[in-house]
Amino acid sequence: MEDKNIVIIGCGAGGGTAAQFARKTDRKANITVFEKDKYPQYSKCGLPYVISDIIPDFKELIEFSEEWFKKNKIELFLETTVTKIDVKKQKVFAKKGNKEIKRNYDSLIICTGAKPSIPPIKNIRQNDKLVQEVHVIRTISDAEKIKSEIKKDGNVTIVGAGLIGLEMADNLHKKNMNITIVEALSNILANIFDSDTSEILREKIPNDIEIYTDHIASKIVTKKNKINKVIIKNKKSNEKKTIDTDLLIVSTGIKAETKLAENIGCKIGKTGRIVVNEKSETNIRNIYAVGDCTEYKDYGTKRALGIGLGSIVVRQGIAAGINAAGGKYTLPSGFLQTSTSHFFNIEIASAGLNSKCLEEKQIISAKYTGNSLPKYYPGGKPIVIKVIADKKTEKILGVQAVGDNAAKRVNTFSAGMMGDLSVNSFRKLETAYAPPIAPTLDVETLVCDILDMKIKRKKQD
Amino acid sequence: MEDKNIVIIGCGAGGGTAAQFARKTDRKANITVFEKDKYPQYSKCGLPYVISDIIPDFKELIEFSEEWFKKNKIELFLETTVTKIDVKKQKVFAKKGNKEIKRNYDSLIICTGAKPSIPPIKNIRQNDKLVQEVHVIRTISDAEKIKSEIKKDGNVTIVGAGLIGLEMADNLHKKNMNITIVEALSNILANIFDSDTSEILREKIPNDIEIYTDHIASKIVTKKNKINKVIIKNKKSNEKKTIDTDLLIVSTGIKAETKLAENIGCKIGKTGRIVVNEKSETNIRNIYAVGDCTEYKDYGTKRALGIGLGSIVVRQGIAAGINAAGGKYTLPSGFLQTSTSHFFNIEIASAGLNSKCLEEKQIISAKYTGNSLPKYYPGGKPIVIKVIADKKTEKILGVQAVGDNAAKRVNTFSAGMMGDLSVNSFRKLETAYAPPIAPTLDVETLVCDILDMKIKRKKQD
Repeated sequence: MEDKNIVIIGCGAGGGTAAQFARKTDRKANITVFEKDKYPQYSKCGLPYVISDIIPDFKELIEFSEEWFKKNKIELFLETTVTKIDVKKQKVFAKKGNKEIKRNYDSLIICTGAKPSIPPIKNIRQNDKLVQEVHVIRTISDAEKIKSEIKKDGNVTIVGAGLIGLEMADNLHKKNMNITIVEALSNILANIFDSDTSEILREKIPNDIEIYTDHIASKIVTKKNKINKVIIKNKKSNEKKTIDTDLLIVSTGIKAETKLAENIGCKIGKTGRIVVNEKSETNIRNIYAVGDCTEYKDYGTKRALGIGLGSIVVRQGIAAGINAAGGKYTLPSGFLQTSTSHFFNIEIASAGLNSKCLEEKQIISAKYTGNSLPKYYPGGKPIVIKVIADKKTEKILGVQAVGDNAAKRVNTFSAGMMGDLSVNSFRKLETAYAPPIAPTLDVETLVCDILDMKIKRKKQD
Repeated sequence: MEDKNIVIIGCGAGGGTAAQFARKTDRKANITVFEKDKYPQYSKCGLPYVISDIIPDFKELIEFSEEWFKKNKIELFLETTVTKIDVKKQKVFAKKGNKEIKRNYDSLIICTGAKPSIPPIKNIRQNDKLVQEVHVIRTISDAEKIKSEIKKDGNVTIVGAGLIGLEMADNLHKKNMNITIVEALSNILANIFDSDTSEILREKIPNDIEIYTDHIASKIVTKKNKINKVIIKNKKSNEKKTIDTDLLIVSTGIKAETKLAENIGCKIGKTGRIVVNEKSETNIRNIYAVGDCTEYKDYGTKRALGIGLGSIVVRQGIAAGINAAGGKYTLPSGFLQTSTSHFFNIEIASAGLNSKCLEEKQIISAKYTGNSLPKYYPGGKPIVIKVIADKKTEKILGVQAVGDNAAKRVNTFSAGMMGDLSVNSFRKLETAYAPPIAPTLDVETLVCDILDMKIKRKKQD
């Protein structure tokens, strides 16, 4: 039997992981990876921390080096764009500079990722390019540019108060810049948090960070070809405000890169991304897709979910790499989107869906603020947890946490959700207790006691 | 209808919690609590930390004060011993000094706890009492005595290297005492850890703590009626060694107090304790039992389990209190014994059973040492996790962890175990990822990847 040909388009977390696991599964396969960027797989999530010098060099973020690919006999083309896929002939065409490269495939893995979406801010472009001091934050090159423009007491305006916007705010704050955050929605972190947990988080953010929710950035004012001010507008009152700005960062989400896949007839789902199954296969035989360009299912509700988290992308990469190479790896029947971040010394985390994503009639929720330690032991820290459950099935559909060990606590809920535990089961979970570590009953179960009580009361109504 | 009479024997964590939840369930019931000690419910687990002054006063450990009982109209008799239960007449007889107290009950909750078991060390008693400088650590009065004998550079010998022995070692080490630990088994923490994880823990304990495993304390040598030396003996070679000792602490487990219950015909199980069901009921109608005097089931194997952890006792107390008062609370079908501790700046945790408690043929395990953060992010800490699974069902039966956030990580396994997740499901758990918080794939799932591979390989054999 001839050696298998595996072609991977894109060498981000998805493509790099797929290559790694394809090689682990088949030692002999011919594996080719095409990547537009000049670096192989690196941690995009690490970029804000290089900007603040917590991580000393962008090179540190590279998880699989060119040497690694060589050693593992994986052909890697950097700065190379795939121009066409021929499904009938099972062939991929790419271009590196003027050179054309063709590769046959038995299995193809599409990991084309996404690009930042840019909101319609007046004057954001000059001659079709973003104004020099306007940046997105997606690649090492983006981050290098931002880093080169850092100056003490400079004014940064960040558009978008999602995870990345807040991480950038914290890391630029650490470089002594003045931070203004502009968010079109009514709350920060609105894609994962409910308004009440968002409000708790907001109260913990230092006062010298200006946050304008319900505001859009409407116009950029330049001076001598440099950005000088940003005009923001209250979406409700239309009131305008002028923000001194030396540096504008846009972090308002992503747009999936699905063109190559669409051209060959890959099914595109409700979220505008490539639909993949539990093997990370598309609807086309022998063609897999991984990462930000794909959609899969939410675990609790099985509704369509656009992929965006590194941890999920890596899992899909494992699945696609193993399956494409002839092995077997099945993903769970949906993702929980367990996620976390840390900014301004606050840890936050969430899993499942938030209330806005769910039918109000269908759900019931409870929130509890407790302490990480028994009250008699010094040094305890506050922790807030909100849990959302399905009224009928009493299954946990979402959880949000702010404070001590938010991530690890949400992991525990994620495990409970994977095991389809009801609120009444989860509230009886034995959590580890010792005075220097945790109270006898943890906030994780206490919040479920309250939720269980609410559910029972509702039933009596 | 007349108000219900509820009598509770013992006001430790079990009895105190039962009283609290009985009152929450029935605002009118007559609730009486009898307690031998002079304090109502306090945290026994907090005692070592008062000894080292981390917690400033023993009074801080009292979780429900006499005032609380008064306010909640619960009749509390301290320093009172129950002498007899009359099951036919549903009556309890107690003595406080010379005064006899009688109470009728509709529901009785037995929370008689346990006393420390004392190993047969020669000369440990003088005139039927423990030598003055020999102490157990179970009550505030025990801890007060130990605290009064602390002196800088004094020599402490601790018999028993379980959780409490190690916690005492750490807290007395903080008071600048010289510590020697003597353990009859081959490993420290042998009741919850396997030999390999125990060894990893031991390597992290500071070198100035002398640890003798496979040794028993055989004899106490006194000088002017004060303890002076302890003779210890190697169980294998019989070689003896003399340990200078100013203070001897015995922490070699407990013996359940079941006499009152046995006298009335409560069923005693394999572990020598009162058998209770998922409502915390004994075999006798209207009689419940809670805490260290009881046995229930291990969650994974359903075999008999002697209760000893505060967190479990509290859950049983909730169940007994609610059910005794006419409410409804069902415990899970078994306990996981999720437990944790922190000593010498090491965090450890475990859940389920260890290998020694299980049939070797039946189980398969894997261990992995990883880091708490991605390798490019500074400040990561090591974490070791060992997972034990059933070879046939592939369900997780036990987990042991040493290092960063061991407790919270084990909680995640506990939730997985409650949901009956197989190793293959748990390894696909989405754990929260962000560079300052956790790597893309956490040690929790990586160790299960290894275990899953081992299971699959075994199947091919």
